[in-house]
Amino acid sequence: MTKLHPNPKGKYIVGVDIGGTFIKAALLDRQGHIVAVTRRPAHAERGVDATLSMVVEAAREAMAEGKAAADQVCGLGMGVPGRHQSEEGICIYSPNFMGWTNVQLLQPVEEQLGVAAFMRNDVKTATLGEHRFGAGRGFRHVVMITLGTGIGGGAIIDGELRLGSSEGFSEVGHMTVDPHGRQCGCGNHGCWEAMAARDAIIERAVRAIQTGRATALAAHGQNLSAITPAVIYEAAQKGDAVAREVLEETGMYLGIGVANLIQLYNPEVFIIGGGIAQAGELLFDPLRRTVNARAQMVPASTCQIVPAALGDDAGVIGASVLVLERLQAKG
Amino acid sequence: MTKLHPNPKGKYIVGVDIGGTFIKAALLDRQGHIVAVTRRPAHAERGVDATLSMVVEAAREAMAEGKAAADQVCGLGMGVPGRHQSEEGICIYSPNFMGWTNVQLLQPVEEQLGVAAFMRNDVKTATLGEHRFGAGRGFRHVVMITLGTGIGGGAIIDGELRLGSSEGFSEVGHMTVDPHGRQCGCGNHGCWEAMAARDAIIERAVRAIQTGRATALAAHGQNLSAITPAVIYEAAQKGDAVAREVLEETGMYLGIGVANLIQLYNPEVFIIGGGIAQAGELLFDPLRRTVNARAQMVPASTCQIVPAALGDDAGVIGASVLVLERLQAKG
Repeated sequence: MTKLHPNPKGKYIVGVDIGGTFIKAALLDRQGHIVAVTRRPAHAERGVDATLSMVVEAAREAMAEGKAAADQVCGLGMGVPGRHQSEEGICIYSPNFMGWTNVQLLQPVEEQLGVAAFMRNDVKTATLGEHRFGAGRGFRHVVMITLGTGIGGGAIIDGELRLGSSEGFSEVGHMTVDPHGRQCGCGNHGCWEAMAARDAIIERAVRAIQTGRATALAAHGQNLSAITPAVIYEAAQKGDAVAREVLEETGMYLGIGVANLIQLYNPEVFIIGGGIAQAGELLFDPLRRTVNARAQMVPASTCQIVPAALGDDAGVIGASVLVLERLQAKG
Repeated sequence: MTKLHPNPKGKYIVGVDIGGTFIKAALLDRQGHIVAVTRRPAHAERGVDATLSMVVEAAREAMAEGKAAADQVCGLGMGVPGRHQSEEGICIYSPNFMGWTNVQLLQPVEEQLGVAAFMRNDVKTATLGEHRFGAGRGFRHVVMITLGTGIGGGAIIDGELRLGSSEGFSEVGHMTVDPHGRQCGCGNHGCWEAMAARDAIIERAVRAIQTGRATALAAHGQNLSAITPAVIYEAAQKGDAVAREVLEETGMYLGIGVANLIQLYNPEVFIIGGGIAQAGELLFDPLRRTVNARAQMVPASTCQIVPAALGDDAGVIGASVLVLERLQAKG
């Protein structure tokens, strides 16, 4: 493969955020502002070629909408879930895309679109976006996590996103926080994401219902699959004691992991994003109490804990930073 | 304070390792070879001036023994336990040195010795030594821990020792590995060092004795303070079942922390040093089994786990690297 070089004269960058359900593509200027944005189905079930065609189509539409010709585009950046050898354009595996085992992602995009393409893990990409243009702006030491189905992480250390020896840096969701805890999808027991992400929250609520506790959530007793984190927050906000306990326990486990990462990465700012972070103070209050109690050697006071600032745009904005970094490295 | 500059024309470097009991000073060449070495009592109880006088005395003796005049010395490096603002020469606090709260360590040494002086945390200094001249040589991603009274850590990421925003990077001993575990000296419960360092090992043995289990360790029953990790290893090596269980459980907790650090730092090599690491396979075997079972997302196979190579010399050798790095940064 002959890798294309980014075009230093371009005014625009294409940022792509690949999710399990949708692909989002944006045309951005070099200051991280979104000029045009579009979405396509990810077609995860149809194989890598189908998904990459959607990426190219979405990129073309964003460019057309923003009236950007290919020669006005510096390059395309892409945030992709999973583990990669991203310099080589290879996805080693991606949890939502069955069959994406050692597949080449950049070459087909470059060939079809004619612009230089770059990629990173999706959460690491979002971290770049928050660092350059969001809640981490101006800091040299930043940790970001996204709370959802799992817990993803990215870390900026001495001003740079760190990948480690095989792009496994900051796999924060898979640190053990309770040796006897629930089994995680990875096979280990008591991983942070097994104790504090989506399934753990739901399981706590279901257990309370099954033991017959009085809770508004029991109205879903015939259809446990209707119990989602959003349903639990709603009940908690209305004062449901069981729902509040679920968030309290989840927040406590979240706080253990946050305190650990403060001891290990010593960041100035700790950014929390992802759908579950929407739960607000009912989750953040026990989280902060736990961090204050447990972060002793590197004290909680050394680090601000803040919500993500770019919301759902962090991915495409971060993807544009992947291209900006290459342009700056060039000189 | 006018900070002295390292002398690029010097042939030698002085490396100092400050411990709670002894100060060790060595004269080294620029390739990390020890030319002369000496020891002095640390006089931790006599205050900072007394200890720094011992540092200067030991440095002068090592220089005299190696026939190195002050103008042949590039500079002096010093590994110091505790948390520091090391660029400013300030020790914020040091666990073994009562009263070392915001004290200046480099200025008195520079004034008395007439050579540029530099400092870092002791374990981070040893990590520099193992990276440049020991078990981490040639790797760009290295984690080192020292097992003893506590668990100290250092991390080389993309070829450089990382300090974080306030020199709290890699405070590995204070990540929670068991939310309901023993209280740690830092105040938190279930810290890695509270579960796997010296006191945890001893407490496991004492508990077994007190519950009346048959063990050779019970011979110390009248004098529990005679039970040390060394006594426990010795009994385990002779086949004592209780002593073996103590090492098995300790190795399991060590493995949890090692697996966590592999998920978080994604190193190529994981170096284990410190007195307790002497226990060998009775400790390393359960440690490795736990890492193999728990390190799934970033697999155990990505990282070699190896013993430290420089032994007790890692501190003074790493201290010389502090000076070498300045010389190289200069040009």
